[in-house]
Amino acid sequence: MNKRFLTAALALMVGAGYALTAGAQAKPEIQLKWRQAAMTLQGKYFYPIRAMAQGKIPYDANVVARNAGLVDALVKMPWDGFTPATKDLKSGALPAVYSDPAKFKEGADQLQSEASKLATLAKGGDEAATKAQILAVDKVCGNCHETFRERQ
Amino acid sequence: MNKRFLTAALALMVGAGYALTAGAQAKPEIQLKWRQAAMTLQGKYFYPIRAMAQGKIPYDANVVARNAGLVDALVKMPWDGFTPATKDLKSGALPAVYSDPAKFKEGADQLQSEASKLATLAKGGDEAATKAQILAVDKVCGNCHETFRERQ
Repeated sequence: MNKRFLTAALALMVGAGYALTAGAQAKPEIQLKWRQAAMTLQGKYFYPIRAMAQGKIPYDANVVARNAGLVDALVKMPWDGFTPATKDLKSGALPAVYSDPAKFKEGADQLQSEASKLATLAKGGDEAATKAQILAVDKVCGNCHETFRERQ
Repeated sequence: MNKRFLTAALALMVGAGYALTAGAQAKPEIQLKWRQAAMTLQGKYFYPIRAMAQGKIPYDANVVARNAGLVDALVKMPWDGFTPATKDLKSGALPAVYSDPAKFKEGADQLQSEASKLATLAKGGDEAATKAQILAVDKVCGNCHETFRERQ
């Protein structure tokens, strides 16, 4: 077993609040690793369906439904990794993440809400509405990155 | 936008089969990054509930339901990242992953099946059954790692 994870897991076992703030009990480097892993996987599953919504590749309703469901899970994952303890670690997070946590949380909440709508829509048969919602999710990503992530 | 992801996304847009084998179209390094991200996040969400099932920390049905749902999504993600193109990259994958893909797939399928059962159980109210299923998932992880992952 990976020692870093054992450390993280043990850290999780101490103290309360491991529910929605699992990351808060882990070492800052682990919090960073977890949140970056979640963002990375959002890219894996979102970019292909965005390309479909943009007409760059053929629309495949099964792929959209599957990926939207996975994205819906993934967008719940990064947020507990942006604790003050991670402030000085090297990452793409801009200082605003730490100086304006309320606005950051607003962006995170909005993404979760829009991604949830997308997952529901994607299971139905309305291609146009699903495409529009994919672009709505993309806009939420972009808006938040504008303020909170270094340009990449 | 991250250039590596753009490259990966563009790679995904070419050719067919981006459905269940998204990873296969991406560069080997990206496939590796994606699969490791998924495994990392499985640890984030599974270890705390395993500790609950083992009686090491108090059982919290809400945390179990939430984490089991996220694990159920995460266990669908790593497998398309173990393509032959990744064979020579440095990772914890043992050669058996590439020499015995049928057995590897069997392990991956078993994990998905057991994790799906866990997610369903965790939403119900049967603590004993849920704990037993958490340990069943843990056993599937361990069995597969025995053959396919370097001891860590």
